[in-house]
Amino acid sequence: MTGLPSHPRFVSLEGGEGAGKTTVLAALRDALLGCGDEVVCTREPGGTPLAERIRTLLLEPGHEPPAAETELLLMFAARAQHVRETIRPALARGAWVLSDRFTDSSYAYQGGGRGLDPAFIAVLERDAVGLQPGLTLLLDIDVQGGRARTRGRDPYPDRIERERDEFFERVRAAYRARAAAEPARFRLLDAAQPVAAVAGEAVRHLRQWRDRAEEARA
Amino acid sequence: MTGLPSHPRFVSLEGGEGAGKTTVLAALRDALLGCGDEVVCTREPGGTPLAERIRTLLLEPGHEPPAAETELLLMFAARAQHVRETIRPALARGAWVLSDRFTDSSYAYQGGGRGLDPAFIAVLERDAVGLQPGLTLLLDIDVQGGRARTRGRDPYPDRIERERDEFFERVRAAYRARAAAEPARFRLLDAAQPVAAVAGEAVRHLRQWRDRAEEARA
Ligand SMILES: Nc1ncnc2c1ncn2[C@@H]1O[C@H](COP(=O)(O)OP(=O)(O)OP(=O)(O)O)[C@@H](O)[C@H]1O
Ligand SMILES: Nc1ncnc2c1ncn2[C@@H]1O[C@H](COP(=O)(O)OP(=O)(O)OP(=O)(O)O)[C@@H](O)[C@H]1O
Ligand SMILES: [Mg+2]
Ligand SMILES: [Mg+2]
Repeated sequence: MTGLPSHPRFVSLEGGEGAGKTTVLAALRDALLGCGDEVVCTREPGGTPLAERIRTLLLEPGHEPPAAETELLLMFAARAQHVRETIRPALARGAWVLSDRFTDSSYAYQGGGRGLDPAFIAVLERDAVGLQPGLTLLLDIDVQGGRARTRGRDPYPDRIERERDEFFERVRAAYRARAAAEPARFRLLDAAQPVAAVAGEAVRHLRQWRDRAEEARA
Repeated sequence: MTGLPSHPRFVSLEGGEGAGKTTVLAALRDALLGCGDEVVCTREPGGTPLAERIRTLLLEPGHEPPAAETELLLMFAARAQHVRETIRPALARGAWVLSDRFTDSSYAYQGGGRGLDPAFIAVLERDAVGLQPGLTLLLDIDVQGGRARTRGRDPYPDRIERERDEFFERVRAAYRARAAAEPARFRLLDAAQPVAAVAGEAVRHLRQWRDRAEEARA
């Protein structure tokens, strides 16, 4: 959704399974700490104790699977809590917030992946969240390449990780379409490169973004 | 919301704390069983194993309290699941569904009580639920009278039951406004009467409703 308020120190990392979000987030955090800034690292679904309990309902395999609409509303319930309890308070005291996934994940997974109406998602974003990241780094990698990376790490994939490749192809396409539609907010990174190259590029984008924000304040 | 599909065998019981919903539901069930009909009794939030786990997140006191928006979305996440896993399958095989609370509770509690926008609730109702009861019995009682009934029963009131009287006054007003706005679906009962009188009136309404539905089919 365009026209939603955003905050320059709110940065999200997006991308499919194994794209490198968690890895790159650590590099961004270190770069900001090196500038002497306060940084809050968080993740979705989750980011507060209640939201982490919602995460458990969402991701554990083997119980009653949520319908697509149930999944969407649980994601946004967790997000509504996350933005109020963790993200806004951190931004209000001047910290950076680096979030491993945010609302774009719902457009990609519940919209693209599950086929739910993006107009419904946009209402949830507007009425229950009301905040966008200033900067979003999309780590783009082909589905096979991302899954090859997580395969060794995860002996027990969660409920969403168990989806088929076609699902993740739709997720990837939805992400790329969002990045193309909002070029001012998104940076698209080729996440198939070696870690050092992806992290270096991500840190470069963040530094440029930070410098621009500093200038705007001066 | 008007214009939403409804089902004649789907009946909801609504009202504030201690109005007598659970008591009346048992009387309605017995009346239908006496006609030889299949009856599924269910409740909200809840009605499926996953939805009951969401209920726990919603109602337990003493943890991180959900923001109003989080509460609303958890309620609708549970409802989206309930309608798909329990209510529609029961209606599809010809059973009656008697639900102790349904979407009107969200308009009353999260709308009236918490002050959330009814237009947002209407979008959730349309896009995540998509079904209304054919008949809704509203058990109306003054706040003090209802609370006096539950006080003895509940040594450990849940998170919502701990709200102040002003909150429940707003809930009651929202319920009454909905009943006035949708007279074809609602029956308003004076729930301050003795149990036998309230239950008798409720059963009379249901029998009339059932007779009319039978005639319409014939
Ligand atoms: N650019 C890269 N090249 C090779 N391996 C990488 C790269 N980035 C991350 N990895 C490795 O791939 C695995 C997945 O990385 P990471 O956990 O950061 O991805 P993610 O996007 O957070 O995945 P998930 O969606 O499962 O959370 C890790 O073992 C990580 O060390
Ligand atoms: N008409 C009535 N007159 C007096 N007592 C009643 C009446 N109806 C129910 N009660 C008693 O009041 C208490 C609350 O009734 P009940 O549990 O049916 O209400 P409820 O609307 O389901 O409440 P809750 O919102 O807490 O679920 C019970 O102890 C019940 O036996
Ligand atoms: Mg990760
Ligand atoms: Mg009850």
